[in-house]
Amino acid sequence: MLTLSAIYEAQKRLAPYVYRTPVIRIQALDEVLHCQVYVKAENMQRIHAFKIRGALNKALQLSPETLKNGIVTASSGNHGRGVAFAGKLLGVPVTVVMPEHAPEVKKAAIRDLGAEIVLCEKSQRFVIADRITKEKGACFIHPFDDYDVMAGQGTAGLEMMEQLPEVDKIVVPVGGGGLVSGIATAVKGIRDSVRVYGAEPALCDRYTESFKKKEPVLVPVGDTIADGTMTARPGDKNFPIVRDKVDRVIPVEERFIHQAVKLLLQEGKILAEPSSSMTLGAVLQGTLPVAEDEKVIFFLSGGNVDLSMIEKVCKE
Amino acid sequence: MLTLSAIYEAQKRLAPYVYRTPVIRIQALDEVLHCQVYVKAENMQRIHAFKIRGALNKALQLSPETLKNGIVTASSGNHGRGVAFAGKLLGVPVTVVMPEHAPEVKKAAIRDLGAEIVLCEKSQRFVIADRITKEKGACFIHPFDDYDVMAGQGTAGLEMMEQLPEVDKIVVPVGGGGLVSGIATAVKGIRDSVRVYGAEPALCDRYTESFKKKEPVLVPVGDTIADGTMTARPGDKNFPIVRDKVDRVIPVEERFIHQAVKLLLQEGKILAEPSSSMTLGAVLQGTLPVAEDEKVIFFLSGGNVDLSMIEKVCKE
Repeated sequence: MLTLSAIYEAQKRLAPYVYRTPVIRIQALDEVLHCQVYVKAENMQRIHAFKIRGALNKALQLSPETLKNGIVTASSGNHGRGVAFAGKLLGVPVTVVMPEHAPEVKKAAIRDLGAEIVLCEKSQRFVIADRITKEKGACFIHPFDDYDVMAGQGTAGLEMMEQLPEVDKIVVPVGGGGLVSGIATAVKGIRDSVRVYGAEPALCDRYTESFKKKEPVLVPVGDTIADGTMTARPGDKNFPIVRDKVDRVIPVEERFIHQAVKLLLQEGKILAEPSSSMTLGAVLQGTLPVAEDEKVIFFLSGGNVDLSMIEKVCKE
Repeated sequence: MLTLSAIYEAQKRLAPYVYRTPVIRIQALDEVLHCQVYVKAENMQRIHAFKIRGALNKALQLSPETLKNGIVTASSGNHGRGVAFAGKLLGVPVTVVMPEHAPEVKKAAIRDLGAEIVLCEKSQRFVIADRITKEKGACFIHPFDDYDVMAGQGTAGLEMMEQLPEVDKIVVPVGGGGLVSGIATAVKGIRDSVRVYGAEPALCDRYTESFKKKEPVLVPVGDTIADGTMTARPGDKNFPIVRDKVDRVIPVEERFIHQAVKLLLQEGKILAEPSSSMTLGAVLQGTLPVAEDEKVIFFLSGGNVDLSMIEKVCKE
C-alpha cells in the first residue's frame, strides 16, 4: 500500500541526497495558458530528473544481502540514471536496460555514473531486464510498479504543498504511473480539494485505454517525442491509485506536445524534456480545464534532453 | 541624481506593467560555482529583458508635447524592445537604431511591437540615432545615461532585497552601466553590507579601463558573444555611481562566458543571453571571490537569444 506517512518517511530518508527544487512563477506564460502558471522544476533536480527520489528511496531500504549481486533496472533513461546514482552511492554495480533510441544525453549520464547499459528494442526492455536479473541473481528495481518507488516520487508532492499551499491544480506527466500515484497520494492526503491531473501521450495512451476497460491493458507504443513516458501498460500497483486519486488523465496529441516544448523554452526560458512540456500541452490542446484566477503547477519531470532535438522542434 | 526614493517611485509607476520575476535557487550549480547559487530571472521578464523597467519608467514621465514626434533610441536590442513596448503602450511611433549583427530574435521582437528599425555598424548607433532624433524633432531615450532609466532598472534591486533579504553578493552584467547603477543604489540603500559586483566582457572592458584613467574613456569594442553589453564608453552619469557604489567591475574573458552559457543551460536548465551568463563566467574565471556558505544572486538580464547560437556554443 502507498500511504501519506510512507511518503513523509521517504522525505526524511532522502533529505541528505535530493534537492528541494524550486516552484517557479512564470508570469510570461499566463496569457497563453489562461491561468496563473507555476512550474515545479525537477528538471533542476540532482541527475536532472525526479526519478532520483523513487530509485533512492527504494535502494536505501534494501539489505546488503539483497544488493550483493547488484541492481538491474529497465528504464527509458531517467530512472536508470536514478538507480545508477543509488548504486554508486551504495557501492553496488548497476545494469540499465534501455531503448536503443533513448536520447544520447541520458545514455552518457548513466555511463558517467559507472553503470552498464544494455540497449534493446523499446518493447523488450522489461523482458530483457528480467532475464539479466535472474542470470546475475541481482535485485530488480522497477521504475514505477513499486510502493517504495512511488513513496519516493511522492516527496515532490509534499514539497509543492509546502511551497505553494494555495495551489488549485497540479498537472503531472504520466508514463507507468509511479510519479502521479505518489504525488496524488501526497497532495490529496494533505488537502483533498487540490485537483491532480495526469498528461500522457495520445500516441501511448495506456491509462486512457485502461480506464475504458476498467483494468490495466497493453497499448501500442507510438513514436512520441515524449520519450520519458513510453510505457505500454499501467503498473498493477499504480492503476488503482491513479483510478481512485487522480482527477483525470488526459491524452495529449503530438502537435500540442511540440507546441509546448517551444512555448516553455522560447517564452518560459526553461529547458525541460518533452515529457515535461506535455503537461502544458494538455492546456494548449483545450482538454484541461483551467481559469484565469487559478494557480496551476505544471510538473517538469526532467531536463535530460538533446539540445539538437529541441532546436529542431523550435524550427517547426 | 539617482536616489533610493526615485527607485521606490519607479516601482509604484511600473507595477501595473512589469512582472515581479522570480529569484530561483539552482542547487545544481553550487558545486561548480562554490557558493549558494540564486538567479534573478529577468530573462522571464515581460519582453524577456530587464530593459522594460528603465524604458517605461522614462517614457511614462514624458509629456504628450515631448512625445508628439515620436521616440528614437539606440540599442543593441533589448532596450530598443523596451522602448518599442513603451511606444506601443502610449501610442507613439518608435525608431530603434541597432547594430546590423544584433540577434534576429531581437530584431523580430522589435518589429512585432510596431517599431521601425534602422540597422548600422555597431559603433555608429549613437551618432545615427542623434541625427534621426534631430531630423524628426523626436525625443531620444538613452539606454543607460539617464537617471529615470537607471531608477527603473533599480526596481529589480528592490525586488531582490524583498525576495532574498539575506543575500550576500549580487553579480550584474555591465554595458553602459545603467543596470548596475540602479541596482547598486537600491541594494546599498537598503543594506550597505551587500556586495554588488559588475561583470563586463574583457573584449569590451570600458569600466576597467575608465577606472584606471579615473574618467570615462572609449575602448575598442571587440567581437564578444555578450551582444547585450557592447558599449564602448561608460555613461557620464553612470560612471561616478558605479565608481562609488559598485564593489568591483570584473572583465570576463570570452572563453569563460562561453563556458557559463553552457553551464547555465545544460546544468541550470535556464535559457539566458550570453550577457547574462557572463555573471557566472566571472566566478568560473576565478576573479570573483565567493564562499561555500554565501548566497549569491546572478542577475540574468535577458532571454532574447538565437537558439542556434546557444547550440553552437554547447557543442564547443
